[in-house]
Amino acid sequence: MARRSFPLSRVYGLLEPGPVILLTTAGKDRANVMPQSWHMMVEFEPPMIACIVSDRNFTFDILKATRECVVNIPTVELAKKVVACGNCSGREVDKFETFGLTPLAAAHVRAPLIAECYANLECKVVDTRGVNRYGLFVLEVVKAWIDPAKKNPRTIHHRGNGAFMVAGRTVKLPSRMK
Amino acid sequence: MARRSFPLSRVYGLLEPGPVILLTTAGKDRANVMPQSWHMMVEFEPPMIACIVSDRNFTFDILKATRECVVNIPTVELAKKVVACGNCSGREVDKFETFGLTPLAAAHVRAPLIAECYANLECKVVDTRGVNRYGLFVLEVVKAWIDPAKKNPRTIHHRGNGAFMVAGRTVKLPSRMK
Repeated sequence: MARRSFPLSRVYGLLEPGPVILLTTAGKDRANVMPQSWHMMVEFEPPMIACIVSDRNFTFDILKATRECVVNIPTVELAKKVVACGNCSGREVDKFETFGLTPLAAAHVRAPLIAECYANLECKVVDTRGVNRYGLFVLEVVKAWIDPAKKNPRTIHHRGNGAFMVAGRTVKLPSRMK
Repeated sequence: MARRSFPLSRVYGLLEPGPVILLTTAGKDRANVMPQSWHMMVEFEPPMIACIVSDRNFTFDILKATRECVVNIPTVELAKKVVACGNCSGREVDKFETFGLTPLAAAHVRAPLIAECYANLECKVVDTRGVNRYGLFVLEVVKAWIDPAKKNPRTIHHRGNGAFMVAGRTVKLPSRMK
């Protein structure tokens, strides 16, 4: 089934639960994939995300230079590939090819969407003031996609040292919070 | 069972999965409690956390003035109280009293720990440069506590509009990531 456009106003609900994300960037020679858990929402609409990328990561220089990326959200079926992407560097390896991930062209950025992920957020870097001190990039989501074929997506949530919590059941409570 | 000191080096593993937190602050007249999902790790050790607090929240002025807070992590048993804390303002209500939460004295900050939460992180505000633009506070965790009586704590993860994902099972993978 084809990927569907997802309303920007609802993006926060994808990231607030704290899933591991796969950050894709378009380097000169190849696209890269970096698993990441240090991210948070900053604004509802337009949706803005803060994330930390260490300058030790291959992604850092590409993100700083291109000011574009895609935040891809994997489900538990992809957990082994997520870990494999974290266990090596894009300096040495083409992760798409090595781990059998499928790049799809994005609409507004050069970084690719990962076809195997259930959601993809095309992002522009809008604020780099926190980069030198913390590696903190502020991103604006300019386009969001969802794979409607993936029902009940079970995200994974990093607990450290290879332990991942798999998203459990959802409860509904009478909250007035957005 | 008494609360136990928790190693600062392991704090990131509590927050990386993205749980809802209860931010406590010590105002002039009363302590306040604010549920929050917009937070991320910024540094492993000393553990540093970024979080967003809107200037519409009662907590904002207290946090800015006192530069201290506690990040408390509730489990699913507390979900109804978490939602209740989000549905009203500390301007009108003493949330500890109204919702039957138990304040405990912290070791290094005036803001109280919440006894019912399974983990409590005493924090100092160390960077307010992102406050005007985003409500972004950077916190340093100066002391961490855990309740060893709470085995297998099931955190809750906000999906928006009163929907919360309850932490599911944990899988272990051969990751070289910290």
